[in-house]
Amino acid sequence: MKKNAIVGQSGGPTAVINASLYGVVYEALNREDVIGTIYGMINGIEGFLNENMMDMKPLEVNGELELIKTTPGSYLGSCRYKLPEDLTDAVYPQLFEKFEKYNIGYFFYIGGNDSMDTVSKLSRYAETVNSEIRFIGIPKTIDNDLVLTDHTPGFGSAAKYVASTVREIAIDASVYDNKKSVTIVEIMGRHAGWLTAASVLARKFEGDNPVLIYLPEVAFDQEQFLADVQKAFEHTSNLVVCISEGINDGNGKFVCELASDVGVDTFGHKMLTGSGKYLENLVKDRLGVKVRSIELNVNQRCSSAMLSATDEKEAIASGSFGVQTALKGTTGMMIAFHRTDDADYHITYAPEDVNLICNQEKTVPLDWITGNGSDIGQQFIDYALPLIQGSVKVPEEGGLPRFAYRKCNCSEPSKIS
Amino acid sequence: MKKNAIVGQSGGPTAVINASLYGVVYEALNREDVIGTIYGMINGIEGFLNENMMDMKPLEVNGELELIKTTPGSYLGSCRYKLPEDLTDAVYPQLFEKFEKYNIGYFFYIGGNDSMDTVSKLSRYAETVNSEIRFIGIPKTIDNDLVLTDHTPGFGSAAKYVASTVREIAIDASVYDNKKSVTIVEIMGRHAGWLTAASVLARKFEGDNPVLIYLPEVAFDQEQFLADVQKAFEHTSNLVVCISEGINDGNGKFVCELASDVGVDTFGHKMLTGSGKYLENLVKDRLGVKVRSIELNVNQRCSSAMLSATDEKEAIASGSFGVQTALKGTTGMMIAFHRTDDADYHITYAPEDVNLICNQEKTVPLDWITGNGSDIGQQFIDYALPLIQGSVKVPEEGGLPRFAYRKCNCSEPSKIS
Repeated sequence: MKKNAIVGQSGGPTAVINASLYGVVYEALNREDVIGTIYGMINGIEGFLNENMMDMKPLEVNGELELIKTTPGSYLGSCRYKLPEDLTDAVYPQLFEKFEKYNIGYFFYIGGNDSMDTVSKLSRYAETVNSEIRFIGIPKTIDNDLVLTDHTPGFGSAAKYVASTVREIAIDASVYDNKKSVTIVEIMGRHAGWLTAASVLARKFEGDNPVLIYLPEVAFDQEQFLADVQKAFEHTSNLVVCISEGINDGNGKFVCELASDVGVDTFGHKMLTGSGKYLENLVKDRLGVKVRSIELNVNQRCSSAMLSATDEKEAIASGSFGVQTALKGTTGMMIAFHRTDDADYHITYAPEDVNLICNQEKTVPLDWITGNGSDIGQQFIDYALPLIQGSVKVPEEGGLPRFAYRKCNCSEPSKIS
Repeated sequence: MKKNAIVGQSGGPTAVINASLYGVVYEALNREDVIGTIYGMINGIEGFLNENMMDMKPLEVNGELELIKTTPGSYLGSCRYKLPEDLTDAVYPQLFEKFEKYNIGYFFYIGGNDSMDTVSKLSRYAETVNSEIRFIGIPKTIDNDLVLTDHTPGFGSAAKYVASTVREIAIDASVYDNKKSVTIVEIMGRHAGWLTAASVLARKFEGDNPVLIYLPEVAFDQEQFLADVQKAFEHTSNLVVCISEGINDGNGKFVCELASDVGVDTFGHKMLTGSGKYLENLVKDRLGVKVRSIELNVNQRCSSAMLSATDEKEAIASGSFGVQTALKGTTGMMIAFHRTDDADYHITYAPEDVNLICNQEKTVPLDWITGNGSDIGQQFIDYALPLIQGSVKVPEEGGLPRFAYRKCNCSEPSKIS
């Protein structure tokens, strides 16, 4: 008897998490010889617990599936639900009864560290009850912090967005080039600095901005930072500095927490200021030059304008490879990316044990960070440059990007009201 | 004897201010029968006072001129220099001696209100000394606040960026759609709400985000705002609210100033928080729901990813029409845009008196603002929709947009170092 498949998305979205969803659904629809219904869980495993799900096949018919490829956000909705560590918890038999009810044979979960933790627990519980359901993780995270994989889908597009936006900000900042200024750009990444490091790609020529780049991997010293800024002014009048939101003192204290030690907002609460805003105030106070800070915010993960064609292609391929892997009988694995040693960039896909991946964090190698912690070296550039290549033309309607919407039957171009 | 031309850029940049520069230079180069050298002033009139200028013709030869069209920022550099009100000030004869020294016959200044003030003063002084130099203003501002013109170049691309980004943010905000949340998006516009109003174009279906939109044209009431949010939750769990940075109490007090009444930052200074951050804290304090604020910041004016083809075409045309107008002997005029009454969108260009334009500000008509000050009506949509049509493919190099750089001879694709 044919088994059904189910796919879900979990954690924060990326620009290509739906491309991975497309890959899973497209490949599964191609294997109707062995796979029956393809379900999408609404809001991940948390939604599935409430049997909140949809049939994915109709999306192929009405063109929505094609549109999903270039739609940001999580089409199926997401969750941040952590399964209990204790595999004897009542939630496990509850979930597996539902799997049985819907005749699930293949389970695909697209996400980062926490999502791989879900895949790990479900596959380990399956073993204890001799379930034959195949559990496969499909990687995604703009943070690029998963181990055992060269990189993760979502990072390439976020890196392309960060680099191109920083290049534009640097040009914008230079128009009053007869006056000194500092522009601080705060980039996502609490513990791993991959995305902030990508700002180095914005440099066009020797000495171009961003001149200074700080990652959470290296302890941040305020006095050294101020000295770096002063020194940079010898060559650049309009300085752009890129920082990770997670820069810290090396002892676990985030720079953004320094502000809340003192500041109190209008409502008497501790000020919750970003690291960028904190450093803006520091530079203003100590150096007295014109300074502003820019937080790139969620656009890093949801902008469709700077989709990397390479990233999109790999996101689709990893979803598709996940289905093939499950059909071979593999379980408890995440689809990892391996870079071959060829001179040309080339990626192969292979399953890796989720148990070795979940709850681990891959940071930027310290020898890729240069300039006494204020710059990024050639090794990172060689690593990251292939990941941002190629651009994707997102379909437009009425002058705006046209996206797929789960909650309304409204993907067809329609009058904006 | 042939006269020379000079062109400058002033005030904040836009995504298409260089397209206007392209229009002026391209047209002037085509009229070598009557125009000699075409100079670019570096950093506007302030730079010209120091004879800081460049010859524009070589840019045509090396391909840089073509690249300028899609390069954000002000290629020639900008300034915020206000000429003295007193036309007997010594700076005027000083400037006109330099005009004579360089045999200037045609002066083009690309900018907003303040730049038109410069054109006004120079043309009025020219009259007092019987100078034959023609002074022409080319409009630009993302704020769209110039009078006597249907709209201004720069607004269309900024509006396209705002609408598409808000659409993406709305999708991103909806992934945890089983939890209530508020996302506040702060958009540029101190006194005129045109750009914030453009966020309404992001709506895809009835009831779609942004559900609430607040402009500076209507007095902002905090209690009414909180009531609006509560009411919106009846239909939408993940609410996106768009606000102008300049929302105010109607008596000249900006919402962002309310924060600085109380808050003091780490360095003992008054907190300088944006209106978005202030409302984020207000919602958290009073409604206790998950809330975040996003400041779109300078990307609104410098992103090349969402260039409107219509905007770019019109920016070029206005520059080009400016040259034609000057050659006809006209002076003291700005190139205005007139929309014909055809069913199809069609623009004609005409000179309008700069003296009636400078230091004026066009705000959004009050009857275009609906929902008791919390929404934007169909009239605005009909007005703005044509301005964001068409997309421009910016050339890429190494996976990133390729821009023109004045300060280095480095527009050719080169290794990123």
